[in-house]
Amino acid sequence: MIPPRQSPAPVDSYAQTRVAVLGGLGFIGSNLARRLIDVGARVRVIDALLPGFGGDRRNLAGREDRCEVDIRDARDPGLTAALAGSAIVMNAIGQVSHHRSLTDPHTDLAANADAQLSILEACRQLDPSPVVVYAGTRQIYGRARELPVTESVAAHPVDINGVNKFAGEEYHRIFHEVYGLRTVRLRLTNTYGPRQSLRAASQGVIPTFVRRALTGLPLQVFGTGAQRRDLTYVDDVVEAFLAVARTPAAYGGVFNLGSDRPATVYEIAQAIAAVADVPVERVPFPEELKTIEIGDSWSSYDRLERATGWKPVIPLADGVARTLGFFREHPAYWRNA
Amino acid sequence: MIPPRQSPAPVDSYAQTRVAVLGGLGFIGSNLARRLIDVGARVRVIDALLPGFGGDRRNLAGREDRCEVDIRDARDPGLTAALAGSAIVMNAIGQVSHHRSLTDPHTDLAANADAQLSILEACRQLDPSPVVVYAGTRQIYGRARELPVTESVAAHPVDINGVNKFAGEEYHRIFHEVYGLRTVRLRLTNTYGPRQSLRAASQGVIPTFVRRALTGLPLQVFGTGAQRRDLTYVDDVVEAFLAVARTPAAYGGVFNLGSDRPATVYEIAQAIAAVADVPVERVPFPEELKTIEIGDSWSSYDRLERATGWKPVIPLADGVARTLGFFREHPAYWRNA
Repeated sequence: MIPPRQSPAPVDSYAQTRVAVLGGLGFIGSNLARRLIDVGARVRVIDALLPGFGGDRRNLAGREDRCEVDIRDARDPGLTAALAGSAIVMNAIGQVSHHRSLTDPHTDLAANADAQLSILEACRQLDPSPVVVYAGTRQIYGRARELPVTESVAAHPVDINGVNKFAGEEYHRIFHEVYGLRTVRLRLTNTYGPRQSLRAASQGVIPTFVRRALTGLPLQVFGTGAQRRDLTYVDDVVEAFLAVARTPAAYGGVFNLGSDRPATVYEIAQAIAAVADVPVERVPFPEELKTIEIGDSWSSYDRLERATGWKPVIPLADGVARTLGFFREHPAYWRNA
Repeated sequence: MIPPRQSPAPVDSYAQTRVAVLGGLGFIGSNLARRLIDVGARVRVIDALLPGFGGDRRNLAGREDRCEVDIRDARDPGLTAALAGSAIVMNAIGQVSHHRSLTDPHTDLAANADAQLSILEACRQLDPSPVVVYAGTRQIYGRARELPVTESVAAHPVDINGVNKFAGEEYHRIFHEVYGLRTVRLRLTNTYGPRQSLRAASQGVIPTFVRRALTGLPLQVFGTGAQRRDLTYVDDVVEAFLAVARTPAAYGGVFNLGSDRPATVYEIAQAIAAVADVPVERVPFPEELKTIEIGDSWSSYDRLERATGWKPVIPLADGVARTLGFFREHPAYWRNA
């Protein structure tokens, strides 16, 4: 039985608040938009629907009539006008495939750095300027030199995606320090849940496990699967966005998300396999992924908890059950994926 | 009297070596190309001659017939063919204005990050692939938290230019770690000398001082001018490139340049004013530059010295005298600047 959500965010404060969600047809963005709509915000979803980036109109199913949807690239000069009047910009756009960043680094740079400059330039030109919450990633730390990883650990990414994501994050710091723009940087861990794109193997290990579980295939763990990670269920991520946007003391800051209980990749596979009733098997680690494998990594979310009271509340088994339940209810998402 | 150069680089080893110099019509690139030509290398200069980037055909005056000059943007798909056969690529392209990076961040990103990806992609496709030496910057450290700054200090740039330059530098690390490309990253301090662009105030304090000194105007120091910097005369920078390119133990590494004797901005102004016989005056610090002023900063070059024997050998007074001498001999550089 999942307990009722104890949200740390002052969700009542969102009633009638104008919030723009960039990347709002994607995985994290659409979950954010749906929650914001449900707590009474006036939501404008902006998404370029770039092929392969995870955006999908179905992600707003049942809420389409309660928000505006604006199909627009963040680099479009009209972005400033599109953001005008927003009190808050939830910035969840980006290219998330580490593997693709090595095969097509220019596209990765365009999405993760150049588009971020466009967003920040647009925001700082508005008067009043919005609060901007950025969906950064734990990936920028690279291989952990101490555990859990705190925000004071220096960035040391292992691939081009990590370099570009760090540049995008750093712009948010610079625009705060130089222009006073109220930005908050979040560093997300591995996020999973309903509406995550299951299309490409390159999206990461969890979508791959989920897709195989749904189709009744054995889950394949690369190598021993002994490396530990902290997963965050997407609803917990959404609450972090809502909380920091309403916490002035957080503006200008950077905050890890994290979990209380890191799990090995093998344990994650087992949790998914248990719900789906499929076996788990070990296969050799693919050569082309070895150089960007980061080993054990999990983050301390102490700073975020102190600032906002945020804690992750969805245990892995519950999150997995909800995720598989969602996709079974909506088979069109993965039947042709 | 300037002592004869004790070069740490095995300059004899450059005879008949094919070296491409990217940005070879610019300040550092042209000084590199000239030195390489003089030690017998077969030099191909590649430069886009982008307006405002410091490239100038006159920078190769007297050497034009002893090298190839290829006017080409690094993002041109023909770059791979243009680099084919190069044993070494000296990578000295980039946008150096911190101020302009804030007014036109997209152009800065294109030059300092996107073009770097193009260069590295081209190099890794070649067989054999060249050694690549990258002209990075001390600027990525931002405000110094300890002095002198060593390579293990985390990047914390204060402006968009610093973020983008760090991304460009990090790509060189990633291409070494992921693809085995033999890259060396140098972090230059404030470099000065002949052929530095004197055009724009935004190029930095030294060109501004030099331009005013040449035209007989008082040198204007912002605020007290008490912040200390380590200047490197361009010939010393050139020797560092030549040395690391021939040091296999340096491949994959990152190395500060530095000086033995940091000078305050006021002392730098006095050194230039003494040669030019102009006064120095203090003026209020411009508001728009305050947020990106980094205070005292100088670097330890211990790691580079240990790896290659490199040391800076040109004292400030000599470097200033040579610089002003060069520009007085070539008044066309600055009379219309």
